[in-house]
Amino acid sequence: MKELNVGLVGFGTVGAGVARILLEDADNLAERTGVRPVLRAVCDLDTTTDRGVALPAGLLSDKLETVLGNAGIEVVVELVGGTTFARELILAALDSGKHVVTANKALLAEHGEDLYARAGSAGLSISFEASVCGGIPIVRAVRDGYAGTEITQMMGIVNGTCNYILTEMAEKGTCFEEALAGAQAQGFAEAEPSLDVDGLDSAHKLAILARLAFARRIDFSSVHVEGIRHIEPIDIQFGSEMGYVLKLLAIGKAVDGEVDLRVHPAFLPRHHPLAAVRGVFNAVWIRGKATGDTMHYGRGAGQRPTAAAVVTDLIDVGLGRAAVNARAFAALSGQLQDAGARSIAEIETHYYLRFSVADRPGVLSAISGALGRNGISIASAIQPEHSPESDVPVVVVTHQARERAMTAALEEIDSLDAVRSKTRLIRIER
Amino acid sequence: MKELNVGLVGFGTVGAGVARILLEDADNLAERTGVRPVLRAVCDLDTTTDRGVALPAGLLSDKLETVLGNAGIEVVVELVGGTTFARELILAALDSGKHVVTANKALLAEHGEDLYARAGSAGLSISFEASVCGGIPIVRAVRDGYAGTEITQMMGIVNGTCNYILTEMAEKGTCFEEALAGAQAQGFAEAEPSLDVDGLDSAHKLAILARLAFARRIDFSSVHVEGIRHIEPIDIQFGSEMGYVLKLLAIGKAVDGEVDLRVHPAFLPRHHPLAAVRGVFNAVWIRGKATGDTMHYGRGAGQRPTAAAVVTDLIDVGLGRAAVNARAFAALSGQLQDAGARSIAEIETHYYLRFSVADRPGVLSAISGALGRNGISIASAIQPEHSPESDVPVVVVTHQARERAMTAALEEIDSLDAVRSKTRLIRIER
Repeated sequence: MKELNVGLVGFGTVGAGVARILLEDADNLAERTGVRPVLRAVCDLDTTTDRGVALPAGLLSDKLETVLGNAGIEVVVELVGGTTFARELILAALDSGKHVVTANKALLAEHGEDLYARAGSAGLSISFEASVCGGIPIVRAVRDGYAGTEITQMMGIVNGTCNYILTEMAEKGTCFEEALAGAQAQGFAEAEPSLDVDGLDSAHKLAILARLAFARRIDFSSVHVEGIRHIEPIDIQFGSEMGYVLKLLAIGKAVDGEVDLRVHPAFLPRHHPLAAVRGVFNAVWIRGKATGDTMHYGRGAGQRPTAAAVVTDLIDVGLGRAAVNARAFAALSGQLQDAGARSIAEIETHYYLRFSVADRPGVLSAISGALGRNGISIASAIQPEHSPESDVPVVVVTHQARERAMTAALEEIDSLDAVRSKTRLIRIER
Repeated sequence: MKELNVGLVGFGTVGAGVARILLEDADNLAERTGVRPVLRAVCDLDTTTDRGVALPAGLLSDKLETVLGNAGIEVVVELVGGTTFARELILAALDSGKHVVTANKALLAEHGEDLYARAGSAGLSISFEASVCGGIPIVRAVRDGYAGTEITQMMGIVNGTCNYILTEMAEKGTCFEEALAGAQAQGFAEAEPSLDVDGLDSAHKLAILARLAFARRIDFSSVHVEGIRHIEPIDIQFGSEMGYVLKLLAIGKAVDGEVDLRVHPAFLPRHHPLAAVRGVFNAVWIRGKATGDTMHYGRGAGQRPTAAAVVTDLIDVGLGRAAVNARAFAALSGQLQDAGARSIAEIETHYYLRFSVADRPGVLSAISGALGRNGISIASAIQPEHSPESDVPVVVVTHQARERAMTAALEEIDSLDAVRSKTRLIRIER
C-alpha cells in the first residue's frame, strides 16, 4: 500500500470536494487502487468560511509554507485559479520537488508548454484531468488512448453553461438573455458569465486537448473565439427546420500540416452524436484515422465530478503513472513543432446565412449573384411568404465555401439597398 | 526515441492491420509518442494467404521460435484467439521475459486473473485494450480514468453484430433471421454467429470490464447470459409504443456488497444515452458515485480500430506505462476479494411482459391476480381491441419486482387455461 502525502492549495468548491473524497473515501480508494492519498495540509486565504467539510484540527492554514515547506508532502493540488499566483505556486511546488495536480485551464492553455518543460526537467509531473470536462476522463483518453491512431479531427461541447443556454433556447424558444438568467438562477452560470458565454473557457479547454491530440505546440492566441451572445431563437428555429441543431463547438482539425482551432456556434446535422448532448452535459467527439468516430460524454463541471478528476490524477501520481507520462511529455516537448495555425479566413465549410431584406422582386437574385461572383453556390434556401409591410428573413445554406470568399460576398450583400441589417452567419459542421 | 521490438503471433485480419500500422505509420507514431515500434517477426501457421500487407522478406514464418526465441523481441502480440494455445503462448512469452499485448477476450474473461498474476510476479505486463470495444479506449478508461470515484453501475452495448440486428429489426420491422442474414451479407456477422447472438461475446467483455470497474475477482461462470435469438419484432414495436428501445446490454452493478453481472436483451427509455447507439456502434455507459453518468461511444470492431487499440497498447509498453499498470494490478491482485455474484433470481428491476391469451372476459384479472399474489404491481398495460377469432397479445409493464417473484408468478400464469403460449419477458433498465 502506497501512502501519498497531499497538500491542497485553494479551499473553494472543488477544493472542498477533493478534501471530502480524501477524508471519506480513503479506505475505498486504497482498496481499489493500492494508493491511499492522505491530506496533510490545506491552504487558503479564507480560513473561516464553512465549506461543508470537517477538516481535522490544524489542517487548514493561510500560510503557503504549511504546504511548500512540508518536506513530507509529495504532491500539491493547485486549485486557486488565475494565471499569476497559480503559476508562481506551481513553479514553487516543482522547485520544492513536489508533483502538481491542477484544474487550471487558463494557466495551462496560455503557459502550459513552459510548465510541462519545467516539470519534465525536474523529473516531476503536472497532471490536469480536472482542467477539461470534469467527470469525463478526456485528458488521459486523448493523451494515451489514441496513441495507435492519428487524430484528424476533434469537436467538443466543453462548456455546460453555453450548452444549457442553447438547449433552453432550442427547446423553449427563449431568447439568450432569458436563458442566461435561467441558467444563473439554476446555478449553471456565473453572475459574470462572459468567460463562459463569450467562448474563452471553451478555447482554453480546446488548446489543452489540441496539444495532446495533435502533438503540436499550440499558440493560444491563434485560437479563433466567438461566443453565443448574438444567437437569436429565429436562427435556431430555421436551422431546426433544415435538420440542424445549434451547439457551441470547440473544433480542432489537422488540415494540410496546419491545425485549425476555433470556438464558435455551429449547426450540426440532427443525427450527429454531439447533437443529442443536452443541457449541462459535455461531450468530445474524436475522429481517428484508424479508429473512426468515437465520443466521450458526461458531466463537464460541478464539485463532485471535478474533485473526482483531481483524485484520479492523485492516484496516477501515487502509482508512478504520472511520472511516466511526464517523462514522455518532456521527451517530446523539446522537439515539438509549432502548430501552423490555420487562419479563420482559410477554413472551408458550409454556411447558414440569414438575410434581412425588403420584400421586393429581385432581392434573392442580387444575393445569389453576389455569392456566385465569389464562387459560393447555394444548397438550399427558405424564403417565407410575401409580406409587404415589413422586412423579411431569407435563409440560405451554402455548399462548401472558403471563409475569405464568404466575407467578401457578405460585404457586397450587406451594402445592397434592399438588405436592411447585417447578415447573420452560422457555420455548419458535418 | 525508444525503439520497441515487436513479435506478432496470428497474422489474420487484426494481425494484418497491426502490421500495416507498424510498417506504414512508424514515423508518425514515433513523432507523436516518442516510441517507435518495430516489427521483428510475424508468426502464423498459414504463410501463403495474401493479407494485403507487404511484409519485408523473411519476417513471416510458421515457427513460433522466430518470436519466442528472439531475445531482442520485448513484446509479443497474441492474436491467435481461443483459450488453449493462446494461453500457452502467453505463458511462454512471459517465461521468455516478454511483455504481452492481446485482443483475446475469451481467454482473459475465463483465465485473466491467473495470467495477470503470472505477469505481475515476472515484472511484466499484459495489455488488452483491443479485447473490448476495438476503437473505444474503454479498458484504460475503466482501469485508470475513474480511480477517483467508485463505479456503481456499468451498462454496455458491446457487440456490434447484435446491435446491428436489433437496429434493423426496430427500424425495418424484420424478424431476427432476416436481420441476421442481412448482417452476414454485410460482413457484420459470422457464418456461425452463436458467439455473438447468444451473448457469450458480450459476457466476455463484461467480465473483463467488471474486473477493472469493481476491483473484484470475477468468476466468469457466474455471469448470467441470454442472447437475442428469441426476440420478436412485435415486442420491439410494443416497447416502442411505450417509449422504450431494445438493446442487448452487458450490465454490471455493485449491489449491497455483491456484483450483479448479466447479459440480456433489455428495454431502455428512449432518452437514455445508450438508446441512440445504432447499427454496429458500441457504447459503454458508466455511473460513478462522484462523476455521475458518463458514456464512451465508438466502433467496437473492425480491422483498423482493433489494430489501432493493439498499437496503443504497444506504445504503453514502450513508454513503461504498461509496466506501471501491471505492477499496480499485481499488487492488488493478491488481496482482491471475490465478487459475491448476485444470482439472477435476486435482481430487482422493471419488467415488460407479453401474454398470449384467449380473448375472453376475466383473463387480465387472472393475470394481475397472479402477479399481485407474488407482490408484483402493474405500472401500465396495453390490451388491444376485441378480436374473437384468435389469441391476442396483452402487454404489461410492472413496477420494480424481484426476479424470483416474477418467475413464480409466470409459472402460475403460464399454467392458466386462457394463456395460450409461454409469456415473453424482457427486463427494463432505467
